[in-house]
Amino acid sequence: MIRIGIVGGTGYTGVELLRLLSQHPQADLRAITSRKEAGMRVDQMFPSLRGHVDLAFCEPADARLEECELVFFATPNGVAMQEAAGLVAAGVRIIDLAADFRLRDPAVWERWYKVPHAAPELLGEAIYGLPEVNRASIKDARVLANPGCYPTAVQLGLIPLLEAGCVEPGHLIADAKSGVSGAGRKAEVHALLAEAADNFSAYGVPGHRHWPEIRQGLAAVAGVDVGLTFVPHLTPMIRGIHATLYARITRETDFQALFEERYRNEPFVDVLPAGAHPDTRSVRGANLCRIAVHRPQGGDTLVVLSVIDNLVKGAAGQAVQNMNIMFGLDERAGLAQIALVP
Amino acid sequence: MIRIGIVGGTGYTGVELLRLLSQHPQADLRAITSRKEAGMRVDQMFPSLRGHVDLAFCEPADARLEECELVFFATPNGVAMQEAAGLVAAGVRIIDLAADFRLRDPAVWERWYKVPHAAPELLGEAIYGLPEVNRASIKDARVLANPGCYPTAVQLGLIPLLEAGCVEPGHLIADAKSGVSGAGRKAEVHALLAEAADNFSAYGVPGHRHWPEIRQGLAAVAGVDVGLTFVPHLTPMIRGIHATLYARITRETDFQALFEERYRNEPFVDVLPAGAHPDTRSVRGANLCRIAVHRPQGGDTLVVLSVIDNLVKGAAGQAVQNMNIMFGLDERAGLAQIALVP
Amino acid sequence: MIRIGIVGGTGYTGVELLRLLSQHPQADLRAITSRKEAGMRVDQMFPSLRGHVDLAFCEPADARLEECELVFFATPNGVAMQEAAGLVAAGVRIIDLAADFRLRDPAVWERWYKVPHAAPELLGEAIYGLPEVNRASIKDARVLANPGCYPTAVQLGLIPLLEAGCVEPGHLIADAKSGVSGAGRKAEVHALLAEAADNFSAYGVPGHRHWPEIRQGLAAVAGVDVGLTFVPHLTPMIRGIHATLYARITRETDFQALFEERYRNEPFVDVLPAGAHPDTRSVRGANLCRIAVHRPQGGDTLVVLSVIDNLVKGAAGQAVQNMNIMFGLDERAGLAQIALVP
Amino acid sequence: MIRIGIVGGTGYTGVELLRLLSQHPQADLRAITSRKEAGMRVDQMFPSLRGHVDLAFCEPADARLEECELVFFATPNGVAMQEAAGLVAAGVRIIDLAADFRLRDPAVWERWYKVPHAAPELLGEAIYGLPEVNRASIKDARVLANPGCYPTAVQLGLIPLLEAGCVEPGHLIADAKSGVSGAGRKAEVHALLAEAADNFSAYGVPGHRHWPEIRQGLAAVAGVDVGLTFVPHLTPMIRGIHATLYARITRETDFQALFEERYRNEPFVDVLPAGAHPDTRSVRGANLCRIAVHRPQGGDTLVVLSVIDNLVKGAAGQAVQNMNIMFGLDERAGLAQIALVP
Repeated sequence: MIRIGIVGGTGYTGVELLRLLSQHPQADLRAITSRKEAGMRVDQMFPSLRGHVDLAFCEPADARLEECELVFFATPNGVAMQEAAGLVAAGVRIIDLAADFRLRDPAVWERWYKVPHAAPELLGEAIYGLPEVNRASIKDARVLANPGCYPTAVQLGLIPLLEAGCVEPGHLIADAKSGVSGAGRKAEVHALLAEAADNFSAYGVPGHRHWPEIRQGLAAVAGVDVGLTFVPHLTPMIRGIHATLYARITRETDFQALFEERYRNEPFVDVLPAGAHPDTRSVRGANLCRIAVHRPQGGDTLVVLSVIDNLVKGAAGQAVQNMNIMFGLDERAGLAQIALVP
Repeated sequence: MIRIGIVGGTGYTGVELLRLLSQHPQADLRAITSRKEAGMRVDQMFPSLRGHVDLAFCEPADARLEECELVFFATPNGVAMQEAAGLVAAGVRIIDLAADFRLRDPAVWERWYKVPHAAPELLGEAIYGLPEVNRASIKDARVLANPGCYPTAVQLGLIPLLEAGCVEPGHLIADAKSGVSGAGRKAEVHALLAEAADNFSAYGVPGHRHWPEIRQGLAAVAGVDVGLTFVPHLTPMIRGIHATLYARITRETDFQALFEERYRNEPFVDVLPAGAHPDTRSVRGANLCRIAVHRPQGGDTLVVLSVIDNLVKGAAGQAVQNMNIMFGLDERAGLAQIALVP
Repeated sequence: MIRIGIVGGTGYTGVELLRLLSQHPQADLRAITSRKEAGMRVDQMFPSLRGHVDLAFCEPADARLEECELVFFATPNGVAMQEAAGLVAAGVRIIDLAADFRLRDPAVWERWYKVPHAAPELLGEAIYGLPEVNRASIKDARVLANPGCYPTAVQLGLIPLLEAGCVEPGHLIADAKSGVSGAGRKAEVHALLAEAADNFSAYGVPGHRHWPEIRQGLAAVAGVDVGLTFVPHLTPMIRGIHATLYARITRETDFQALFEERYRNEPFVDVLPAGAHPDTRSVRGANLCRIAVHRPQGGDTLVVLSVIDNLVKGAAGQAVQNMNIMFGLDERAGLAQIALVP
Repeated sequence: MIRIGIVGGTGYTGVELLRLLSQHPQADLRAITSRKEAGMRVDQMFPSLRGHVDLAFCEPADARLEECELVFFATPNGVAMQEAAGLVAAGVRIIDLAADFRLRDPAVWERWYKVPHAAPELLGEAIYGLPEVNRASIKDARVLANPGCYPTAVQLGLIPLLEAGCVEPGHLIADAKSGVSGAGRKAEVHALLAEAADNFSAYGVPGHRHWPEIRQGLAAVAGVDVGLTFVPHLTPMIRGIHATLYARITRETDFQALFEERYRNEPFVDVLPAGAHPDTRSVRGANLCRIAVHRPQGGDTLVVLSVIDNLVKGAAGQAVQNMNIMFGLDERAGLAQIALVP
């Protein structure tokens, strides 16, 4: 059993992490911290966990996180980078579900997140936790940066093409749609049901924080800098990301076979048969990315459809997948949930 | 391992049964029949099951159901009663998720379902599968009638009061709200998203088929006939039933304690602390009924709030719970799913 | 043209009032105040009003409200009572869309709203603006209390029965369901789409502020005190209230005819044919209450179904209706909108 | 007053047309036909129209359509082309809300709609009713083809760029999202709330009937053939289309000014200020297209966001706008509705 602590955990990635870890055969959840909710039972805030999680939120000072083997940060951006060094020094491994360790260049981080990075010395060793690309280095990570939700869906949909060098890397387009839980469990007017239901809009078109993260990841596999137009949209559903990806073909190949081959051994990427259109509910609650490849009217623009549950493969599920790799467990341990349909 | 067949299974109770059985440690799913879809892979119709269910729908004649130990009917009303006798004669036990064996009196059945009952000789031995009431007789059932969704939520909320004889049995009110999946996976205009979303209405106020079922169940525990006003409503969500129950108090007692005591040992009924308001999402995807008891302003009208997932505790989950009891398994086997929140 | 000011107006009743007034042939909207948003154009906050409202929010001090003939308060509870006296003294008439002048007894107000009433001297002359009951006195009102949303739906559904004295007044039940806009345009976690969508729950069962308001109104028409169990629920839709009302019959009559006769001349109450089930979308965006009466299975419990749009007949529309009456206009002026379906 | 008939009218474009025409100062609605529903009052099928539409559906033979000045076809594809010639011969003008007269080339029609065109001789004179492009020829149209919903949103967003010749016409991308009412009021499983809510998917990626329609329109303004990748998606809302359009810049200009100038005098196209993100609800129920132009990170890919209500500017509203032009009325007559927000 792995001794685990969670910092934060009152948000959506937190409750999802609790759902998954409480069903995980090797997870021994020791503490969950929240300054604001210290003393409140977890299952009072999240009645869905009654009977499954027998903990109360506690003050960070009382959590004895240094006795854990692994600490998840399910905190807002900017928290993990303050506390990571101390824990790492105590021998604790870290998985950060926020953005603190995703960008390798602290200058880029500061440009997009508006504060200087507090632990630039850790950026060098931090591993970007996209198992389908970095599995080998994840094994030994002390500081693991769990990818963002959009970056997971977009990268998994474009990587096979860039690795194979068969599309133009300078003009990629990612038109992405997210459920509202992606905005977090924060009281904000734009995310109210009365604002967001029966409504659809783009946001952040001039610039979104996931843009540099995606570009960094794609450039790494492409071996060259990539040009990316990224337009996120808010769609009136709770969970799910649907990325519609456009790339111009530069070299002919069997694209369906390319994707199937690339992900043949991946437990959490499912390439659908030719002609399919994945829907987000087919991964609702499950740690899966489903992908379909289309070439409309035989033109030179390839269309890739990639769906994930933003809270699972896009957050907590991928974090558990990374934990499994880091601790030498079966990568699928605790991640057998079937999507909830309907 | 229990050899299992499913008749029907292209509807919502069917796909939910498949989700649960494919995660059940003792279920050996042998065949699933559908005249209409024979030959189609199950995971083509329900991509959420890719990797979990490796069967195709088959013709009933090819299913060799008589070699199964248990057959679930996830069919429209009126099918199971045609086929049950043959299977029972072959030694197969049956769980019917439809209404065919729920009403003990074939005349009542005919009045509400508009066709004569095809197997009245089986009604005598059919067991009504509400484990919280009939656990002992479920054990040996050959023909098990799985309760309706509304009847499950309403009965579990009223039974403690009627057993204790502390409310007026002649004037019960059940104001029930259901998600649209309760209407089934049938192409009907009123259940279209464009009709049912952002909308709310009652239906069937003059009479609903679950009314005689609820009355039969309540009368059995009350020991007297009961008067029930039952108003179902359609609410714009996928899953979930919320029953708001009103009963006039005739004898004082500690109602909170009454409910807690009644369900203390029930694995799938959760009595919430005093003052709580259960929400349907807290049981989404889980085999649970959560209940809260209120006495507004200290008056003489008791208000009970009872929520279930109509497809789980209201259908497929309860069917698996009944299977567990019938086959001497741990009643919770395969039913550990935590509600999906958010 | 009536010179009109609005205090507040950044919430949902505010934007709805703007929608209606900007289409009203006699409304001359002079100013709209908001301390917080002063200086921002109204159509920047509400792009739906681009081309229809050419005002910016202004500081109350700059609004010259005393030059208006009518001022609407679309403010939180507790604001209008602070400012009403001064305006009334200046000869301005007032319509308060909040609760400040709804309850006649300041002690009851204080009990439910937790602060002493700031203008008890105005309570005596304040008129409760339910036109179907108080039309005559509304004409001359200086201070008009616009009814709450639940109270409108519930009272219109029960008044014919209480006036006719044909149901038991001591045991009325109002099971009411509201869309999430009823919670206002306030940043609160429970009203987020990710919390409230695909979910259903009751709230405020121990006590809700609309309970004393409904009781006061019903007692006035019944001529006796009434007993009321009121259970509000949150339903995952934007607009709409559906009240399901239960009353025990004490005297036989033709209930369908009773309702039709009572509302025959009411422009904004529509009694549906016998057997109908009104849905909330049939009044979406329209100033209408639709009502159906049922007597299930010929029992002694009457079921009344009453639907309104909480922001129109339950708020801004009724306020405009009251304005029309107060200023001697056609009661239907500016209120011809047809419900938006689908 | 214009004597008007409607053929069809039991679908969503039909009820929307009824909503608009019943508020139109010059519309004299004489008959509405439906073979299937003949005899049923319109307001029985659509209770939202009670008090506004006093007609029953009638048999086509009884409708005396040849006495009308204008007949709207709100029918499935393939009906209007059967009946148009006779009406035109009788001097009746026609607006077809379906696709029958949208494609100029009958061979293209047959390829996409799978049946030969029944009135190819009318295709030559049929006018494509996009007023922002064809206003002059619409005036005298006898047969008017009302544009499709996607084509309206996509063309209005791309036309200024193609007219100005400042983007590459060979590689346009239209990523479009539609509410479920776009699928019509037809009983189909995929459009059920339990299927489409809390879900998102693309569809028709290999080919969609609106693709040739959009290409035809864009080629006409570009003066050259255009290359278009068109990916439609189903989004869980009732009304609304959001088109996200991508074009590669070939010539620099002030794109914001270009759009503002192009649509300066258009009553139903609203170019938002730079930096804005239109949401579909800002046009819900209104005959409007709102557009925003972005150039993310100063790159060479332009992003245009274009929203309409698919049932209004994308169908019935545009049809009424065309009627106004055809009959010399104020183009805005009967189209003053403000979007319903929230």
